[in-house]
Amino acid sequence: MTADIAEQPEVFARLADTQAAPIAEVAARVAAKRPRFVLFAARGTSDHAALYAAYLTEIRLGIPAGLASPSSITVYGARPDLSEALVVGVSQSGGSPDIAEVLRVAGESGAQTLAVTNNPDSALSTQAELHIDVSAGHERAVAATKTYTSELLALLMLVEGIRSGDGRLSDAEAAAVAALPELARTVLDDETAAQLAPRFRFAERLVTTGRGYAYPTARETALKLMETSYMSALAFSGADLLHGPLAMTDPDVPVLAVVGNGPGGEAMRDVIGRLGERRADVVAVGPDEVEGAAMWIPTPSVDERFAPLLDILPLQRLALALALTRGENPDAPRGLRKVTETL
Amino acid sequence: MTADIAEQPEVFARLADTQAAPIAEVAARVAAKRPRFVLFAARGTSDHAALYAAYLTEIRLGIPAGLASPSSITVYGARPDLSEALVVGVSQSGGSPDIAEVLRVAGESGAQTLAVTNNPDSALSTQAELHIDVSAGHERAVAATKTYTSELLALLMLVEGIRSGDGRLSDAEAAAVAALPELARTVLDDETAAQLAPRFRFAERLVTTGRGYAYPTARETALKLMETSYMSALAFSGADLLHGPLAMTDPDVPVLAVVGNGPGGEAMRDVIGRLGERRADVVAVGPDEVEGAAMWIPTPSVDERFAPLLDILPLQRLALALALTRGENPDAPRGLRKVTETL
Repeated sequence: MTADIAEQPEVFARLADTQAAPIAEVAARVAAKRPRFVLFAARGTSDHAALYAAYLTEIRLGIPAGLASPSSITVYGARPDLSEALVVGVSQSGGSPDIAEVLRVAGESGAQTLAVTNNPDSALSTQAELHIDVSAGHERAVAATKTYTSELLALLMLVEGIRSGDGRLSDAEAAAVAALPELARTVLDDETAAQLAPRFRFAERLVTTGRGYAYPTARETALKLMETSYMSALAFSGADLLHGPLAMTDPDVPVLAVVGNGPGGEAMRDVIGRLGERRADVVAVGPDEVEGAAMWIPTPSVDERFAPLLDILPLQRLALALALTRGENPDAPRGLRKVTETL
Repeated sequence: MTADIAEQPEVFARLADTQAAPIAEVAARVAAKRPRFVLFAARGTSDHAALYAAYLTEIRLGIPAGLASPSSITVYGARPDLSEALVVGVSQSGGSPDIAEVLRVAGESGAQTLAVTNNPDSALSTQAELHIDVSAGHERAVAATKTYTSELLALLMLVEGIRSGDGRLSDAEAAAVAALPELARTVLDDETAAQLAPRFRFAERLVTTGRGYAYPTARETALKLMETSYMSALAFSGADLLHGPLAMTDPDVPVLAVVGNGPGGEAMRDVIGRLGERRADVVAVGPDEVEGAAMWIPTPSVDERFAPLLDILPLQRLALALALTRGENPDAPRGLRKVTETL
């Protein structure tokens, strides 16, 4: 897991270099069809990348987007009319039968189908009309890290390519993508997050939160902490937190809050205030110190759209360091397999 | 909360009686437009009713459905093209500004808009093109119970009305709806769930799970336990649980598993087996005892489509009893207000 995490700057560079042309081709084919809506099908970590892509699709393309509930198709046999939709399966292994089944049914119904995987030879990739290879290289640890961020970047390049119309990134977008490896290196060189691990040594539960583009980061952080450190980590959008779960927070439930420097971060200020009323112990993650937060994990100041590719890095390091502090083996979480097959 | 819970059989009867005609009219107007897709916007408990309705929409109508992320519109100013969509806001109070804003933007974009609320005079209701009144009566406790089940029933009647084409329920559906009050009474008379409360007196965390139609029940149960007993309760679809969070389960993390007698319940068998490998302490909720579960909360044997209206009842009672056992006041959870306003 240490090696997988450390490789991410290099993975960003390789993906931007070797996959720009094939992703642009896929983006151009999607742009030509101009879908009425986009449905993402994914599980686990890939579901968080899909959630990020759903925000991008709505905000950057003005196309409604949502996450599929595969069971309506795979368990109950639903056959929704997806004839004007783009249906995107996201899966690092490309090996989960339910995601492949959703794409099969979508294709039969006339949808354009796209597989985003780290395995071009997988069932999902070969079955979909279009395929994007996130080219993260072999991921050794069971807990996904570099395949997550490479999915994020591939989906960002896809959406921005669709937005431009011809599939290629604008010069400004291409420059922002080109800057990512160096920014990622800077973030990974910072020891703040790893040094925070002892503070959570005996915590059994934790809350993560963020809004908009930062919400997938909150979800993925919670999953990493569950997988590697066996914490009961609950992720909420900042708004959903106020609609009930806030009651459960108190000074003994640590909170990790992802607070960017754009509209999503702005919308989190009220949430941090309400958490303060509950005397919650808040660690903020983002480019600025946040009033009401006890501690701060600094990350680069970038557009909120790019922040998910960087903000997750110290949080992966925190999960790893916490697992080691607890004497657990983060490379082989109990009860899990690298390829999870659900129906 | 005790009174709100006890009223649910009566609320089912009143809703089916007084709202059948207005819901049929709304359903007929939706059926006439035949939306390309349906988007639900909701928060908290109402979001779980919306999730149930999304499954119904895909499975019973063959129309793609999803849950909106309001922040893409309200925080980032996205203006997705919703011109062939039905956009449904679900909110007991009808008072959350973000849900109203999603419906306003959707209406401007040409969508058919529908508000499902317990308050016909609310901003949400007056703004939407169509309105359904779930007529649950005044809900006294902050933690929603009877407004949840009345939302479920209203949404079920809506979807089945759209399915029939003329907005009215088929005879078989009408009979199943008419049977609900008596079934609900039977469930509420059973003391099994309330008697289980002491077992969880000192548990700080808990997992709830279910698949398909039962997944909203798992989500809503977790929220009730967070709101009233301040537990860190994590809800997962049975499939998502296997994609990572399973690692966090062990004999000290209780699991509540909703296992129906249809395809969703069948798909849970493998999940219960995997939980057994982790020596998890599983309480099953459903019509049948489940191999591998330590205990069983019995609920009536009905089609899985109707089960969410009944399975949640003992789980509401469990949350209430647990809060009382802990010396908490379930009517006024710390940090919460009855009408939550998020932007």
